[in-house]
Amino acid sequence: MLLIAPLVSAQEKSAGVSTPSIAEAVTASATVSNAPSLESLMSAYSDLRVGLDTVWVLVAAMLVFFMNAGFALVESGLTRAKNTVNILAKNFIVFAAASVSFWVLGWGLMFGDGNAWLGLKGLWFVSGADNSPALGSDYSSANPFSTAVYEGVYSAINWSPVPLWAKFFFQLVFAGTAATIVSGAVAERIKFGSFLVFSFILVALIYPISGHWIWGGGILGMTPADGDFFGNFRDFAGSTVVHSVGGWAALAGIIILGPRIGKYKDGKVNQIPGHNMTSAALGVFILWLGWFGFNPGSTMSAGNGSAIAHIIVNTNIAAATGSLGALLMALIINKKFEFTMILNGCLAGLVAITAPCAFVSIGSGAIIGLIAGVLVVLATFAMDKFKLDDPVGAVPVHLINGIWGTLALGLFYNTDIAKSVAALDTGLSPIAQTVQQLKGILLVGIFAFAISFVIWYVLKIVMGIRVSADEEQEGLDIGEHGDLAYPDFQIEYHKLVGNKIVEDKISANGEEVKA
Amino acid sequence: MLLIAPLVSAQEKSAGVSTPSIAEAVTASATVSNAPSLESLMSAYSDLRVGLDTVWVLVAAMLVFFMNAGFALVESGLTRAKNTVNILAKNFIVFAAASVSFWVLGWGLMFGDGNAWLGLKGLWFVSGADNSPALGSDYSSANPFSTAVYEGVYSAINWSPVPLWAKFFFQLVFAGTAATIVSGAVAERIKFGSFLVFSFILVALIYPISGHWIWGGGILGMTPADGDFFGNFRDFAGSTVVHSVGGWAALAGIIILGPRIGKYKDGKVNQIPGHNMTSAALGVFILWLGWFGFNPGSTMSAGNGSAIAHIIVNTNIAAATGSLGALLMALIINKKFEFTMILNGCLAGLVAITAPCAFVSIGSGAIIGLIAGVLVVLATFAMDKFKLDDPVGAVPVHLINGIWGTLALGLFYNTDIAKSVAALDTGLSPIAQTVQQLKGILLVGIFAFAISFVIWYVLKIVMGIRVSADEEQEGLDIGEHGDLAYPDFQIEYHKLVGNKIVEDKISANGEEVKA
Amino acid sequence: MLLIAPLVSAQEKSAGVSTPSIAEAVTASATVSNAPSLESLMSAYSDLRVGLDTVWVLVAAMLVFFMNAGFALVESGLTRAKNTVNILAKNFIVFAAASVSFWVLGWGLMFGDGNAWLGLKGLWFVSGADNSPALGSDYSSANPFSTAVYEGVYSAINWSPVPLWAKFFFQLVFAGTAATIVSGAVAERIKFGSFLVFSFILVALIYPISGHWIWGGGILGMTPADGDFFGNFRDFAGSTVVHSVGGWAALAGIIILGPRIGKYKDGKVNQIPGHNMTSAALGVFILWLGWFGFNPGSTMSAGNGSAIAHIIVNTNIAAATGSLGALLMALIINKKFEFTMILNGCLAGLVAITAPCAFVSIGSGAIIGLIAGVLVVLATFAMDKFKLDDPVGAVPVHLINGIWGTLALGLFYNTDIAKSVAALDTGLSPIAQTVQQLKGILLVGIFAFAISFVIWYVLKIVMGIRVSADEEQEGLDIGEHGDLAYPDFQIEYHKLVGNKIVEDKISANGEEVKA
Repeated sequence: MLLIAPLVSAQEKSAGVSTPSIAEAVTASATVSNAPSLESLMSAYSDLRVGLDTVWVLVAAMLVFFMNAGFALVESGLTRAKNTVNILAKNFIVFAAASVSFWVLGWGLMFGDGNAWLGLKGLWFVSGADNSPALGSDYSSANPFSTAVYEGVYSAINWSPVPLWAKFFFQLVFAGTAATIVSGAVAERIKFGSFLVFSFILVALIYPISGHWIWGGGILGMTPADGDFFGNFRDFAGSTVVHSVGGWAALAGIIILGPRIGKYKDGKVNQIPGHNMTSAALGVFILWLGWFGFNPGSTMSAGNGSAIAHIIVNTNIAAATGSLGALLMALIINKKFEFTMILNGCLAGLVAITAPCAFVSIGSGAIIGLIAGVLVVLATFAMDKFKLDDPVGAVPVHLINGIWGTLALGLFYNTDIAKSVAALDTGLSPIAQTVQQLKGILLVGIFAFAISFVIWYVLKIVMGIRVSADEEQEGLDIGEHGDLAYPDFQIEYHKLVGNKIVEDKISANGEEVKA
Repeated sequence: MLLIAPLVSAQEKSAGVSTPSIAEAVTASATVSNAPSLESLMSAYSDLRVGLDTVWVLVAAMLVFFMNAGFALVESGLTRAKNTVNILAKNFIVFAAASVSFWVLGWGLMFGDGNAWLGLKGLWFVSGADNSPALGSDYSSANPFSTAVYEGVYSAINWSPVPLWAKFFFQLVFAGTAATIVSGAVAERIKFGSFLVFSFILVALIYPISGHWIWGGGILGMTPADGDFFGNFRDFAGSTVVHSVGGWAALAGIIILGPRIGKYKDGKVNQIPGHNMTSAALGVFILWLGWFGFNPGSTMSAGNGSAIAHIIVNTNIAAATGSLGALLMALIINKKFEFTMILNGCLAGLVAITAPCAFVSIGSGAIIGLIAGVLVVLATFAMDKFKLDDPVGAVPVHLINGIWGTLALGLFYNTDIAKSVAALDTGLSPIAQTVQQLKGILLVGIFAFAISFVIWYVLKIVMGIRVSADEEQEGLDIGEHGDLAYPDFQIEYHKLVGNKIVEDKISANGEEVKA
Repeated sequence: MLLIAPLVSAQEKSAGVSTPSIAEAVTASATVSNAPSLESLMSAYSDLRVGLDTVWVLVAAMLVFFMNAGFALVESGLTRAKNTVNILAKNFIVFAAASVSFWVLGWGLMFGDGNAWLGLKGLWFVSGADNSPALGSDYSSANPFSTAVYEGVYSAINWSPVPLWAKFFFQLVFAGTAATIVSGAVAERIKFGSFLVFSFILVALIYPISGHWIWGGGILGMTPADGDFFGNFRDFAGSTVVHSVGGWAALAGIIILGPRIGKYKDGKVNQIPGHNMTSAALGVFILWLGWFGFNPGSTMSAGNGSAIAHIIVNTNIAAATGSLGALLMALIINKKFEFTMILNGCLAGLVAITAPCAFVSIGSGAIIGLIAGVLVVLATFAMDKFKLDDPVGAVPVHLINGIWGTLALGLFYNTDIAKSVAALDTGLSPIAQTVQQLKGILLVGIFAFAISFVIWYVLKIVMGIRVSADEEQEGLDIGEHGDLAYPDFQIEYHKLVGNKIVEDKISANGEEVKA
């Protein structure tokens, strides 16, 4: 009480006592002008509670917002210089598009009161009734002195004691993340306009519908009645809701687009190295930072400091062991400390811990991350095996580890931590929980992949989704944007054979490597 | 109350009751050692209030500080490789200079008690009397249990319930922003030393004087008495205070410096493309992030969570629609998704929403941003029309949209939001408010432009402001800093003709393009 | 109370009074359902207190975490393109390694209860007993209504009122910083594997042991009994604990590794310019930002808003005057505005203010920073004098200014500020304090340098620490990682002679400059 010591003295002086008892204080206070009533103290407490929770949720949301910069850097860094403007522009405009489409419709579909499959009320422009930060009676413990009861149409997210626009902004940055995942997978060959249209649809329709099932009070997240097949699915911060959904949409795009020219030729896999490892490294640092908003922020309240601290440490340890796991795995296979594998190992660990961070111990988090690091390396090889050309490894990182993390929540399920950290304990055994997780993974997977596939296909027919071969060879920067990312620099095209460089061509206009 | 459940149980046990009533609690507490008095609860509340508000204001200030990195990246990215060190150095040292000169004098001129035109008390080194976070009686609602009354010489900013140094730091980062805006406009030709001197003067004198008029209790912000011409001007976070002032100073510099060699030749406008779109994109992402401190942080308190949430959503939607507006406008004119226009559209939306974010609805914010995106494209063309060479578009972004945003506050004025979010309602109709806004825009514009013009002119005579033509051709990095930004890379000079590249010259020492 | 006004009215209505007195409120409340008891208000207060402190400590920790990105950019930017992947990979994996080794052992050694030299309890996996955020009786003022008394084995850090994992995470990011400092000093020649092993050892053993002496209740930080030689050493945020320790380890590495090929030849010093000033500048901006977590966050509580505000302003002014001091010093010596000196001057000011920020006035902070800026320029020259090849200036920045800052705490010691900001007043005079500081500097210096020297030496014998001359010439990116940082760009090697460039060789595979 260093700071307020003088105040106390002053008040003590006026009350004429040195250490007032409660009884004396009550009496004394009543005689002091401006003396607070217990009621006003309660009100003031509510005020502070809302202020603190809002600050926490919004700071976390800002960190997640900044992940857009991280994805832009990772994705452009891992692709070629001639497509840099295009990739940066895609990752930039995708959040602008998400901001509009989640506002117009996405939020309502996801969090509006409705049925087990869809939000139906307050659909458009976040304009439904809502008296947040008032809380429902179930959640009164979060703000014990608020006597206002929640009245509105977004009840599924009413457990968070923050104002409506704070909830919206936090959820918006998550929706934007799902869209930005797709960007990397379809890089270096997709039409800018088609990508933009797909992003609008993803954020307005696909993401919020499966999101409704899990976080919007729908079929997967709800407590099952006897005999219900689905239910009790848990995903704390979105291994499935965000990352797998983005990953499924990416996979559908990869299949319909086909590989980049020259990637698979004469039965060989040609590595197409990214143009800027500084970008890639900074991007992953920014994503790692952003995840400290993504996971701990998903408490959507600062009411439980211990929970937030547990989640941040779990998030960090999985990133660390993910990096180390991928480093070791790549060292075994390629005898090199492969940097892009270290980076994707880190992201893999982060994606995997996203669902279980509030349900498992720190030790389990370390193991989950380590396995994620191994998985991402193996999955990267597997993708090339199937000639699925994913320039930045979006599917190995977000889809494979989104699935792994969602399963891991079950496998490492810890009831005590589920109660004290997530406050979402299902009471199930690890096996039973894993089964429910698996059902959710399948349902969301089938939905997200199928609908994305259809939309990509329709876009292909209606407006085309792939640039011409000429434009692809020349680089999308010139074709789509009339611009170059680095006009002052001489660009050349190399190929690594083993660890030797074969210099192929010096070119400023982005012609393709001819090996 | 998950976290504190054990404590309560322990206390309950010692009191021998399971659910104590108030009356019982009061009695029981009096018998427990360390039982708190109501007074100490009030004090503790004050303590928490100050802690929370300080954390919020400082976190917001940090985000605004980081905008220096954003501006450095945008401005260097949009200019040539041969001047990169110079631009980075300018944008780096400008905040160091601002930190010193706002401390020495700027703060006192802006927030010191004085008259309608100038702060006069506590001028030097922020050394005036001030017992913050104590609050004036007008603001007691912000901290209902503080009985200390504000005593000091910085009364105009006494509505913020944080300690003096927190107020100072928040205001400092705003002052620094104004100075850094100038940097881009005068890039690629200004002498480093002259820019440094101008920056000191801008932050010590120009910015704080017009700032005093609006935020320091001066002529524009004050409630007008009957018959007063000025007054009731509103600018929530600085469309005018920060951005227009920086923009006017930039415009004066552009005029006195003249265009870069080769920009306007034989009646043609030669585009001089920036050297690094990765830098530019990352820079704008950082600025977008920084604006979440700039606007929501201007509450300078976390007392109203709903207000903060409203402001952040408004800020974001304007950035989004600004980006989309500029994209569409550039697509119509140039048939390309022009990336630099998307980026400047985003910044334009952010600048425009800065004044009105706490006075208008989210829908209005979306429209304000959209118009800003269109305006920035048109203004960019207009600048070239008048042969005003602004390498990074500082005037279209900060001046034009600073004016637009300040006017938009009036045009879209919403009394309910002004009351509940800004807590600064004037009671005026949109038209009447717009008129007062216009008066302020003119007064600040005349002052900031005229005094900047004079200072640039005096600097030109006294120490020179433009480097030699030789140095300009060779690049300022070598001339001013004895350094190169990218010494390991081969630099060449291209020119885009349509979307074809004309390769002009490969050069490592920065010679000028000869088309 | 804007926000909660409606609630109050509602409550007032139900109680039938317009402005209830305390006595009335107590009675009235008892009749309202859900009426809070004073006890529950206390509990709720505790809850908020913990939430706020946790948010502050974790946000600060995130900023410090992000310094890893800053160091990666500064260090890679100031070295050659051919070693970029290697340096980025080192700075990336070092935090992963730190995360594991500080969890496994480092934390326990540093903060476990033990003796004056070592932590002994709760050594492994942060698994000791600890009921944080409960506080010890000494610290009850930080949370006056918590009646729980601390019980655990990490008593030395029990003054911070946050949960255990929040303490851990904050301390972890500090430990990681010490390790990352080493990275730059040994750049462009060290084996990746050996560096990784050294980092594990540094964070698991070296850093936590000397850290225990100062922050863990050990020999240096403790209040000395009569006749004790050591004690009363103060280091608020780690000029010695973090920066000097990292600096000593770096110096030992530099000596054992020897200089890079070509740096000192024929009695001449050949400057080897860094490849990317954009990276370096962004890196320092990120570090400057990170320091706003580093220093103000070291309060490890938001209980004293005025203290946090004082510390952030002190941190910033020292960064500013450090930049300006180095700029002036380099201008005097080299007649140029040398950018790398401005950047290192900023870092020097930040390192120097780290220890004294909570013990000295803002004016003193400005002077401390200014001197740091001068020192870093002089120390850089001195290093070359002794043929100590430190590619990024890690020793001048972190060691020299770590020492300077620790001494400056004594020289500028201000008792009033020590009491109100640091709450760690020793009661000593500036001279007496300086003497105790000096003793600590020597003890830590001898320990950290000697043990680092031994470990580097053992590593040299056991696994080798320097890459082959061939690999060094070709670049470590290919040799260690089978990768290139910028495969699309043509790389060349320049040398600056005066401010003229001598173009030596165009090479894509990283061969050494032959002047």
